[in-house]
Amino acid sequence: MSELRITYDRHGPAQEVLKLEEVPLVDLNPGQLRIRMEYANINPSDLGMIGGTYGRLPQLPAIAGREGVGTVEAIHPETRTSLNTGDRVRMPESLGAWRSHVICEPEGLIKVPSEIPAEQAATLFINPPTALLLLEEFGNLKPGDWVIQNASNSSVGTWVIQLCKLRGLHTINLVRRNELAAPLQALGADVVIDDNDDNIKQIKTLTGGNLAKLALNSVGGNSVIRLIRGMADGGTCVTFGGMVGDPIRFPTRNLIFNDVHLCGFWMDKWMRSHSQDEIQALYNRLFDLVKTNGLSSPIAGTYSLREVVDAIEAASSPRMGKVLIRA
Amino acid sequence: MSELRITYDRHGPAQEVLKLEEVPLVDLNPGQLRIRMEYANINPSDLGMIGGTYGRLPQLPAIAGREGVGTVEAIHPETRTSLNTGDRVRMPESLGAWRSHVICEPEGLIKVPSEIPAEQAATLFINPPTALLLLEEFGNLKPGDWVIQNASNSSVGTWVIQLCKLRGLHTINLVRRNELAAPLQALGADVVIDDNDDNIKQIKTLTGGNLAKLALNSVGGNSVIRLIRGMADGGTCVTFGGMVGDPIRFPTRNLIFNDVHLCGFWMDKWMRSHSQDEIQALYNRLFDLVKTNGLSSPIAGTYSLREVVDAIEAASSPRMGKVLIRA
Repeated sequence: MSELRITYDRHGPAQEVLKLEEVPLVDLNPGQLRIRMEYANINPSDLGMIGGTYGRLPQLPAIAGREGVGTVEAIHPETRTSLNTGDRVRMPESLGAWRSHVICEPEGLIKVPSEIPAEQAATLFINPPTALLLLEEFGNLKPGDWVIQNASNSSVGTWVIQLCKLRGLHTINLVRRNELAAPLQALGADVVIDDNDDNIKQIKTLTGGNLAKLALNSVGGNSVIRLIRGMADGGTCVTFGGMVGDPIRFPTRNLIFNDVHLCGFWMDKWMRSHSQDEIQALYNRLFDLVKTNGLSSPIAGTYSLREVVDAIEAASSPRMGKVLIRA
Repeated sequence: MSELRITYDRHGPAQEVLKLEEVPLVDLNPGQLRIRMEYANINPSDLGMIGGTYGRLPQLPAIAGREGVGTVEAIHPETRTSLNTGDRVRMPESLGAWRSHVICEPEGLIKVPSEIPAEQAATLFINPPTALLLLEEFGNLKPGDWVIQNASNSSVGTWVIQLCKLRGLHTINLVRRNELAAPLQALGADVVIDDNDDNIKQIKTLTGGNLAKLALNSVGGNSVIRLIRGMADGGTCVTFGGMVGDPIRFPTRNLIFNDVHLCGFWMDKWMRSHSQDEIQALYNRLFDLVKTNGLSSPIAGTYSLREVVDAIEAASSPRMGKVLIRA
């Protein structure tokens, strides 16, 4: 039996630096268990990490991928753990998720309820908690308030729409392709408009004169000007993505006369500054939102580990939904 | 006797829309007094107001100018006031300051101690309190901390340098002309560097590895990228000017990975949200800083009301110091 893994030993475009390696599966040592990967996920930050542009970088050579789930396939008899074979767990982020198997210790593993489908579970650890925390930690939102976001068809974007719907918040969703309006409205989007150059009147008309207390930016460049035009005085614009894109730009007057604030959110930093219990509690809330409220991430396609370059191309193309990798 | 006043009845470039009017001085009514203007000041916001780009605009036709001082020249015998003729007061902002005389009621007039020279007094009501509040309300500064600013030769900039020096704070000053280094250092600037494209290494070398907790922006455009490169993680960048310039731009990654915050400061809003007593207390602190600590605004030149167009041209040209208007 062997393990497949996607590795890189230098930073650069994923298509150029990623390699598929096949290595024999070694025996478990006492204290260890083995997870068989079911689904991994492609996040923009994976490409930033591979490319060398992300805020923290792994030691090279590294195994790619931050997010995935698998089932516990084997446990060494001398390993102390409450996990059983067959349990579904998050692939440990620090060891890389784009691999068919991983051998690790049980400490810190996140157990996923069996009712959560594996494809959904593979998408629940980075983007959905980002959406949840953005809505809870910024803007002091109350039911009836409006939120504006760009890249609304992103994974965070679709979770923002669903979470807002659930909480009586309204969303203005900027998208770059008209055909996204219908699927986003089906998820609960109140207003979907073109992320083009001149939409402020449209925003006011379509929202009945409402402007947003919170703006969520994962694009950068001129799109931030449009977000800020949709914001109420005193509002907050949080940037959580777009690291490799154009510089953010917006008119000075919005800061001075409209008292908007710009800040950032980095999920990694939140994770580092919270305890294991707090992180588990956050994930439990997300598991409940999937089980009880039916929230989900759209899935755009699934590729095998051997097709990782195609998967990355798909994940970098216009689409709605996550591109998954299976073992 | 007549009054000279600079008026405008439509918004546009100052050179095109300003008019000099000469009107007879009318008699005082009960409750009124008359102020003879000594010196008025040209602020960027004056040009924004005349041009129609400022955050609040006067009813037209309007008398130009927001800031100036004069002496009380006559008081109607039936006017109740603690002021005496000869007292120096701020020209009431709402009635326009670019005029030889103004007739008004005494309520709300700011009295200026006679020890403050009239030229300095004319510059004390908008820029110096902005500098003071920027340093007190943002960045949570402690002695030894660093502040970075652009347009360091502006009036706010020179006050920031002097106030920082007084409080044991250090300043990194970006300027667009090398010849400003010596006069800014004479005021107490720690580091003066070119506001050019590639100065981050220079900043770290010149400050002994220190980065700024607070950045002050009144320029916009690419200069904000340079400010943010000089900022420590978690720092605050406050924009208080540059309303008519290029959009602010900066890389997304600074918001996310370096956790910098961007916000605005508008003196007008501070004034509206504070009581007359609080405003007077702020001005008293500034009067003391001039009298006791010798802080001052450099003066670049003085023009008569009849030369207002030349004055505006001088105020719009590279220089260090305020351009004043005398009656």
